[in-house]
Amino acid sequence: MSLFFNKVTIIGVGLIGGSLARVMKAQKICGEIHGAGRGRETLEEAIRLGVIDHMGRGPAHAVEHADLVVLATPVGTFASLVREIAPHLKNGAILTDVGSVKGGLVRIIEGLLPPGARFVPGHPIAGREKHGVGAASEDLFRGAKCIITPTEKTDVNALEAVTALWTAAGMNVVIMDPEQHDHIFAAVSHLPHAAAYAMVSTVAEFSSGADNYTTFSGAGFRDFTRIAASSPEMWRDICLLNGKNIVEMIEQYQFALNRIKKAVKHNDGRKLEELFRSASDVRRGMQ
Amino acid sequence: MSLFFNKVTIIGVGLIGGSLARVMKAQKICGEIHGAGRGRETLEEAIRLGVIDHMGRGPAHAVEHADLVVLATPVGTFASLVREIAPHLKNGAILTDVGSVKGGLVRIIEGLLPPGARFVPGHPIAGREKHGVGAASEDLFRGAKCIITPTEKTDVNALEAVTALWTAAGMNVVIMDPEQHDHIFAAVSHLPHAAAYAMVSTVAEFSSGADNYTTFSGAGFRDFTRIAASSPEMWRDICLLNGKNIVEMIEQYQFALNRIKKAVKHNDGRKLEELFRSASDVRRGMQ
Repeated sequence: MSLFFNKVTIIGVGLIGGSLARVMKAQKICGEIHGAGRGRETLEEAIRLGVIDHMGRGPAHAVEHADLVVLATPVGTFASLVREIAPHLKNGAILTDVGSVKGGLVRIIEGLLPPGARFVPGHPIAGREKHGVGAASEDLFRGAKCIITPTEKTDVNALEAVTALWTAAGMNVVIMDPEQHDHIFAAVSHLPHAAAYAMVSTVAEFSSGADNYTTFSGAGFRDFTRIAASSPEMWRDICLLNGKNIVEMIEQYQFALNRIKKAVKHNDGRKLEELFRSASDVRRGMQ
Repeated sequence: MSLFFNKVTIIGVGLIGGSLARVMKAQKICGEIHGAGRGRETLEEAIRLGVIDHMGRGPAHAVEHADLVVLATPVGTFASLVREIAPHLKNGAILTDVGSVKGGLVRIIEGLLPPGARFVPGHPIAGREKHGVGAASEDLFRGAKCIITPTEKTDVNALEAVTALWTAAGMNVVIMDPEQHDHIFAAVSHLPHAAAYAMVSTVAEFSSGADNYTTFSGAGFRDFTRIAASSPEMWRDICLLNGKNIVEMIEQYQFALNRIKKAVKHNDGRKLEELFRSASDVRRGMQ
């Protein structure tokens, strides 16, 4: 099967959307790329950088005649965006996304689409240290995992095409169901973000006036809380969309903290070392 | 005042002890440096690298005639080490340490020393990404903070000498009392370590068999949990020595997590964004 899309529309031309555009251009996977999104300046920059070819008058207009539409805006915008573009998708168009929540959101999007549109939910686990289309690179995805979460409604050919697309970007595609995705990412991504926000708040509460505790933080605290600098709106939306799993994970985490607290309170060095050692072994095994 | 020690003894010639030795040699602050510690091989390596000049037959022997003795082993060993070396310290000797717990431990050490020995508790906040004497560098401390926590018993001249030593190493010396130190570091260092161990345990519990959740972790989780690879024994001892403050911080942290959990449970986007935004603002302000 040769992978080629005549017209591609990317909604949200930031780091992820822009990098995917660069992959498609570099590998001649597409004819022309249209961009859409809230920021006119971002789109103009994307054209200037050669990341996209055209900018539409809005998402609905931009997706007309597109063979592939990629949602690369924050997940909180997906439902209303799909509602807006759904009537304008051509018959047979493939719609995919790069959102970090699947589960119920996938079912909502499926419910909004006309019968001829083919949705393939995706989640490339790409580095997000940098932001914006200026940092977009065809190498961003190389070697990382991309989770694709088809449902019983997913068109097999569309699934194959999206799999081929991310494979072309250098990613290792993993297929799983949307609910399993959300449980896993509640644990490895959403919980750590919530925990980092909570940690910064905790320390900030002791940091009034001259006694600013954060000025004494070392590399550990900085590493630990780096993700707390992430966009509050984006993480608000992720937490709301994956609420049930996140509540479960926070509770599990509080339980693990309780075990440590109890061992400290009881001055139980043996237990404490055991708790730390098992975690330390897992973490060392990760790299 | 010219800063010079005829004989210096460093107990625990790892990254910190070794780097301090390199500073003293580079700046000709000392005559000869003796090393002591549990690992014979480490000491032999330190001699081969020119970090120290001699290795003693044990701490008690090594500290004889020393003008400056530096405790650079894990804090859990301090009390028994001081008990062992106390009778061998020469009159007027300065004893200092690099431990990350002060508070009650400082009082314990003071209680163990003979009247002629002058203890100055210190805590250089140095990067600990690398380990061992092989990574020791005279530049390790440059630009970072060193906390010195004198008590009403601390000799003023000894305090001045230790302050001058860390200043010579390029550190910004901050003076505070031992109890305040332990409250601050429970927040910015000890709590994050406990939290990272708890986080890894939480995720590991969902990682049985083929479904290893940790294999899906991105840069956020890895940053967040890097410190969980630290030595379990060392952190056990720190938690036990600073137990009261750490229990307080874990409780504050659980309280902050509860606020987030509650907002997620109640689908309260406004509250969630407010919680995330205030933390995000603090974190962004930190660099």
